[in-house]
Amino acid sequence: MTAIDDLLALCGEISDLGRSRALLFWDERTQMPAAGAAARSEQLATLTRLRHRRLASDELGRLLDAARAETAGADPDSFEASLVRVTAREWEKARRVPAELRAEIARTTSVAEHAWQDAKEASDFAAFLPHLERIVELERRYLECFEFDHPYDPLLDDYEPGMTTAELRPVLERLRDGLRPLVAAIGEREDAVDDSCLHGDFPPAAQRRLAGRIVAGLPLSENSWRLDETVHPFATGIAIEDLRITTRFDPGYVGAALWAVIHEAGHAMYQNGIDPRLERTPLCRSASLGFDESQSRMWENWIGRGRPYLARIRPLLAEHFPERFGGVDDEGLYRAANRAQPSLIRMEADEVTYNLHIALRFELELRIFEDRLELRDLPEAWNALTRSDLGIDVPDDRRGVLQDVHWAGGAFGYFPTYSLGNVIAGQLWAAIAAELGDPDELIAAGELAAIRDWLRDRVYRHGGKLMPAELVERACGGRLDTEPLLAQLRAKFGEIYDLE
Amino acid sequence: MTAIDDLLALCGEISDLGRSRALLFWDERTQMPAAGAAARSEQLATLTRLRHRRLASDELGRLLDAARAETAGADPDSFEASLVRVTAREWEKARRVPAELRAEIARTTSVAEHAWQDAKEASDFAAFLPHLERIVELERRYLECFEFDHPYDPLLDDYEPGMTTAELRPVLERLRDGLRPLVAAIGEREDAVDDSCLHGDFPPAAQRRLAGRIVAGLPLSENSWRLDETVHPFATGIAIEDLRITTRFDPGYVGAALWAVIHEAGHAMYQNGIDPRLERTPLCRSASLGFDESQSRMWENWIGRGRPYLARIRPLLAEHFPERFGGVDDEGLYRAANRAQPSLIRMEADEVTYNLHIALRFELELRIFEDRLELRDLPEAWNALTRSDLGIDVPDDRRGVLQDVHWAGGAFGYFPTYSLGNVIAGQLWAAIAAELGDPDELIAAGELAAIRDWLRDRVYRHGGKLMPAELVERACGGRLDTEPLLAQLRAKFGEIYDLE
Repeated sequence: MTAIDDLLALCGEISDLGRSRALLFWDERTQMPAAGAAARSEQLATLTRLRHRRLASDELGRLLDAARAETAGADPDSFEASLVRVTAREWEKARRVPAELRAEIARTTSVAEHAWQDAKEASDFAAFLPHLERIVELERRYLECFEFDHPYDPLLDDYEPGMTTAELRPVLERLRDGLRPLVAAIGEREDAVDDSCLHGDFPPAAQRRLAGRIVAGLPLSENSWRLDETVHPFATGIAIEDLRITTRFDPGYVGAALWAVIHEAGHAMYQNGIDPRLERTPLCRSASLGFDESQSRMWENWIGRGRPYLARIRPLLAEHFPERFGGVDDEGLYRAANRAQPSLIRMEADEVTYNLHIALRFELELRIFEDRLELRDLPEAWNALTRSDLGIDVPDDRRGVLQDVHWAGGAFGYFPTYSLGNVIAGQLWAAIAAELGDPDELIAAGELAAIRDWLRDRVYRHGGKLMPAELVERACGGRLDTEPLLAQLRAKFGEIYDLE
Repeated sequence: MTAIDDLLALCGEISDLGRSRALLFWDERTQMPAAGAAARSEQLATLTRLRHRRLASDELGRLLDAARAETAGADPDSFEASLVRVTAREWEKARRVPAELRAEIARTTSVAEHAWQDAKEASDFAAFLPHLERIVELERRYLECFEFDHPYDPLLDDYEPGMTTAELRPVLERLRDGLRPLVAAIGEREDAVDDSCLHGDFPPAAQRRLAGRIVAGLPLSENSWRLDETVHPFATGIAIEDLRITTRFDPGYVGAALWAVIHEAGHAMYQNGIDPRLERTPLCRSASLGFDESQSRMWENWIGRGRPYLARIRPLLAEHFPERFGGVDDEGLYRAANRAQPSLIRMEADEVTYNLHIALRFELELRIFEDRLELRDLPEAWNALTRSDLGIDVPDDRRGVLQDVHWAGGAFGYFPTYSLGNVIAGQLWAAIAAELGDPDELIAAGELAAIRDWLRDRVYRHGGKLMPAELVERACGGRLDTEPLLAQLRAKFGEIYDLE
């Protein structure tokens, strides 16, 4: 065996532990009998600890040294050189964090997510506060394992390798500033779009059938996915060809499930397109959460809320809900799918205001880690920002500070990646248009697979081989740029809302 | 920390790896998209290897030594003494088998089970033969890790701790010899029982609803179980309060699912009744597969095919299948549920002939490991024994040698535990009758929980603390004894078939 083979064997074990943990996580949220929660926390903590112990091991360090010597001078893009480079980065990060701290975070967040679910249902922030305090305390201990310019940097780096708070802040500010006039202009024409066809009585059983058909119509490889119900939709990969998409069904609003399913299928599409050779290595992941979100958002919004795709699925909607969609035409559905207005729930927000929800969360996370906000004051701060940024009052914590699972899961630093995803999607869409021609024409011709193939070639197949900044450069030619996204939103919503 | 605490921490990790593996196993058979199979094999192999490595570790040996010193003189029934004793037995067994061999068995059987499924569907033994040959070759390498009087002993000991071929053979022979006259007498009255109400058109969706109601009516703790579909029904525990019951639905015969579900729920009941203190230790399991089967068979046959239970669920059957059960009375249902006749499929066999199916498999397994049978000749030997023991011709391998998953899973030595389970169930039933009074009267009064409580007190709560022979002695007073079972079967079927 060569050093690379030894390295691959250990990476395979680490990967299998991570994939097993992903399955336990998925099962907990979609299948597990409720009484299994306590034991599941222990199981997750153990897999997390064992995985971390191997990732941070002296043995991996030695194998990396040997493999580095063996691959000296190899093309940096080669499988072997990439494996050594990316594994070394993960090893170095892992060495800094004690296995017990990681296990404690896993155990605490597993319990906290159940508490969050109950607290959200009861709209009772006080019941969730002790869990959140414990999580933030653990996150601060986590930060202390790293050197940083800004305490938010290590959190961000976990989701967006190489990104710093100093780089991120101006990008999100440009985006926010660019969107404000558009949101204001739309706000003046509030009643211009009718989305009543999406609201009404949508029995979950019929939504479930519809959602299955929707995913089946997307270019995922055969027999490689399944769709289940959960409280907070997510997608996870147990293998390149074993993808778990989840959604929830709002009986009064079909849009919740419809675009959530396409969103999560977008994540699955990315995983599904990774070069099979990267399976069971640290390269078998997206380049970053931002890139991952670029794909969920692109399939959800650029494609799933685009004219030609909606025209293609309109018969499916009419078949499942004839009373709601029987009398709706293509243009009516397109306008309904793209109604923009400030709203309470991020998950249901339109493309334009979505980034204001993110800006709010990013701001609150910065305040927490810059010690400018006590956690007990979080609901008040949330509500004040919602009032000033989105212009609406939060009626209860269920629809306010308790709406998202992320903080219960310890995922601070995650939210900004949604907006980064939008920015990257805008750049990729412009690149597709420049290289393949108008993507809407491809979609109208039923050529979703052609778009998927371009994305696979430029983005998906590389997995985590490249740093995000490098991948943006290679796929889109240039740096992170908010202009394509802003231009696309101005054009799309300018037309829908008949703006100057 | 005391030595026991250190031991418990390591045992907890070993248990969590085993439970995670059980979840991957369950998921593969009930949820996994088909394309995930190859990756799943690797994941299972890794968890098996890592679990084994820790179980066979020097570290566990040292912790056992320290804990043994700490618990010297403790009551052998105490939690601590039992933990040390049982863990030491597992450690010693594990030390003998190289981790790579165990992982290879796991990998091979994972692939073989998919091949078996295809081969069974196509009734193509030749397609399965290379997998079976590889499995038996690996099992022989496994045997060589142990000292034994008979090559079948180490296989048996994995399922039935302490049991030897020399002890088992006469028990199964007494059972077979005791059953022969009964089967012959029943055979002369072949048309005496009408079970036509169980055959017909039973849409799987309605069976699924019925099966859910059936399990919900059994005394399992709340929110601690779920029911799913699979090819070969099984039950597995992810935790004491996280139990996975599986079944399959034969659209032409409702009995397949009905009693399979009660059978698997019996396994779940046992797990559910283990003392919670034993969770995350090697004690958190049944005393043996025989004891486990005693519970599945008892709930399936002694209870599930008894007069009072059937009378209680008859309205449920009539509700789901009014055309089939609307005109059936209690006695008609009881007789239909207990029709005895030699048949091809073990899973669907009645209580009387069931043990002849086991005797056949036991005989073939002995021939294989005594080098008296080539695997390629297995279908012929199977068919010949079916003809001589059960008096029927096997039309194809699908309904013959390919009908069971066990050999594809490498579970040689498992089949005899089904008959041992029947023997033990007979003894436990007699003990219940002696202590609580006629169990049928309890069931008629809706007191299933009283029977469960007795079983929990005498059997379930002890988990794997006691060796099976010791547990038989304590729960039933005496040694393994085929007489109670034979007496019960003679009485029950003597009445149904109006025998002398």
